[in-house]
Amino acid sequence: MPASAPWSAAVGQGGGVLRSVDIGALELEAGGELPTVTLAFECWGVLNAAGTNAVLIQHALTGSTHVSRGDSEEDGWWEGLVGPGEVIDTDKYFVVAANMLGGCYGTTGPSSIAADGAPYGSRFPLVTIRDSVVAEARLADRLGITSWHAVIGGSMGGARALEWAVTFPERVRRCAVVASCAASTAEQIAFSQAQVLAIRQDPHFAGGDYYDGAAPTSGLGLARRIAHITYRSETEMEQRFGRAAQDGENPLHLGRLRPVVGGSFAGRYQVESYLDHQARKLVSRFDANSYIVITEALMSHDVTRGRGTLTQALTRTEGVQFLVAAVSSDRLYFPSQSQELAAALPGDVKVHNIDSAIGHDGFLTEVGTVGDLLRESFFAQ
Amino acid sequence: MPASAPWSAAVGQGGGVLRSVDIGALELEAGGELPTVTLAFECWGVLNAAGTNAVLIQHALTGSTHVSRGDSEEDGWWEGLVGPGEVIDTDKYFVVAANMLGGCYGTTGPSSIAADGAPYGSRFPLVTIRDSVVAEARLADRLGITSWHAVIGGSMGGARALEWAVTFPERVRRCAVVASCAASTAEQIAFSQAQVLAIRQDPHFAGGDYYDGAAPTSGLGLARRIAHITYRSETEMEQRFGRAAQDGENPLHLGRLRPVVGGSFAGRYQVESYLDHQARKLVSRFDANSYIVITEALMSHDVTRGRGTLTQALTRTEGVQFLVAAVSSDRLYFPSQSQELAAALPGDVKVHNIDSAIGHDGFLTEVGTVGDLLRESFFAQ
Repeated sequence: MPASAPWSAAVGQGGGVLRSVDIGALELEAGGELPTVTLAFECWGVLNAAGTNAVLIQHALTGSTHVSRGDSEEDGWWEGLVGPGEVIDTDKYFVVAANMLGGCYGTTGPSSIAADGAPYGSRFPLVTIRDSVVAEARLADRLGITSWHAVIGGSMGGARALEWAVTFPERVRRCAVVASCAASTAEQIAFSQAQVLAIRQDPHFAGGDYYDGAAPTSGLGLARRIAHITYRSETEMEQRFGRAAQDGENPLHLGRLRPVVGGSFAGRYQVESYLDHQARKLVSRFDANSYIVITEALMSHDVTRGRGTLTQALTRTEGVQFLVAAVSSDRLYFPSQSQELAAALPGDVKVHNIDSAIGHDGFLTEVGTVGDLLRESFFAQ
Repeated sequence: MPASAPWSAAVGQGGGVLRSVDIGALELEAGGELPTVTLAFECWGVLNAAGTNAVLIQHALTGSTHVSRGDSEEDGWWEGLVGPGEVIDTDKYFVVAANMLGGCYGTTGPSSIAADGAPYGSRFPLVTIRDSVVAEARLADRLGITSWHAVIGGSMGGARALEWAVTFPERVRRCAVVASCAASTAEQIAFSQAQVLAIRQDPHFAGGDYYDGAAPTSGLGLARRIAHITYRSETEMEQRFGRAAQDGENPLHLGRLRPVVGGSFAGRYQVESYLDHQARKLVSRFDANSYIVITEALMSHDVTRGRGTLTQALTRTEGVQFLVAAVSSDRLYFPSQSQELAAALPGDVKVHNIDSAIGHDGFLTEVGTVGDLLRESFFAQ
């Protein structure tokens, strides 16, 4: 389909349905290439003839393209933000969300079938946030988007949004970086390493080539537990669970140390049961190799790589309007990291506070605040 | 040996050498019993005839009885605090450190041989902080200690010290609780669960009965990595490592995703190499089952269990002089937990600040500050 014909006109404007395009071969920042890449995406609304009313919403680590329900049956992860008459009004804007390179929601990733007919598995290469952004730029080309009205993301999505603005400043008019940072820190790398190891050490991982056998679900579940703790604040967990025992279980039971069928243990604290639940939920919807690939990509996140100091790296974004926001209780992406980013951006950028006791996940749960900030900054009538 | 003869006279006063006593069968708080328990300990100095000049120093999670070099060749974990002329002057005090119940430094634990001639392994029962304190009280009886001049501990050692004061207030004249708390919180339980699971999910764990085969070193190493991140502050890790690559390695190398011999991966960040090192060190000195047993004991820590509110539980410590101290940057045992404890203790107890940017481990690294606080509070001449 030629870029001159608004792509979105052919797919309907209700959106919320997964689509995909082939964007060809992709050379990778760390070396090597993916010989063919499919990008999966969803879109809502209609692209204007000039290709200038598009908004890109970038998902977080295990997020998907499903930002908003649209014509589907399932609520999106930022439900209420995108739609007719909503903050990002699909009567005016063409909204796109792409599944990140290496993901498992339709974009080429380790579970995709390589040229030889077998899944990539262990052969899937290291990809970076920048690789994903380059791939997404190709998607923008295919869709006929000349420059984004805004690129918006939280957490790893914020890293992707920022990298977009720095890599293609002429194609990004506004950029929202929520609960994110300019570069992953030592601690973020450390927690990531633990998560990656949890998966690699699962006997079912088989070096990444597990697709013809049992999946490394225990390892992926453990990775999620570790991650989820960092997504929540100490206070939130304490107020919600404290030291309470799970209903009908006794953490002080002598039998606690003995495994019950299925890998769980008798006598859990409520917070353990909660994390078991989070683990089960993720395991049922996510591929372990994709978890590793995207986590490694996030570890690589550093907008300064090859671009000098942070201030130097960000100079090229002079024409981009920024919205930087941090969750007050975030202890994975500390508000101080947002401050550091804002201070280094050209012009006078302030950090908006998302007031929440919940921790990092506040960027998802406080969708009302995020919406208000976006409306004020980028979508005022 | 009769309790009337100062036990320490027979073992020499230089100390720093591992000793052990059989304290008989032990009924456990969660049910069941250990039919025979050996407690390993070290001691320094000489017990006076009245049995009143003894000081008990309680180790942390993976700590040992080796607080101080004494006559040994190896520095202790609180080196400089205990010895002739030191803060805890062994010319005046008889200092004891006992390996916790379930440990792997001489005290009966899962690697000990049960009555049937095989290691306990998976048969080792759930023990609590209280069980360990009851065992240590038996040790005090054997040593002829009528009441402790002081019971002192940091981190889990602080939990053990506090539990001593609450369980046997008539036998504890002073109690120092450093970088610890009245009860493990939801977050502490959550991080503990992740560590325990990391071990259990190691294929070599074999349900805990691995002593005739390979040990679950990968799992124990991962548990240590998770724990170690919580022992250090975000700031400390960032200033020390940032995003630096390990010497001679390239984290952006395409080969990063492929395992190298021995389970490590090409192209690590420096902080990953550091955590690999911490993991290797622990694995070479600690038993995985003991790690689980002691972690589960710490999860059980709650001085209020069966004793009403925190204030009610602590009322019985009216005659005990307390020293409560917190590390300013601790994000595992938050200073607020020390505040909560101090506020609930009888009388006017303030929280002393151990100023350190390092995080929880400050209770070990800031031995000078800990010594000053102990001197002022408990060992003034």
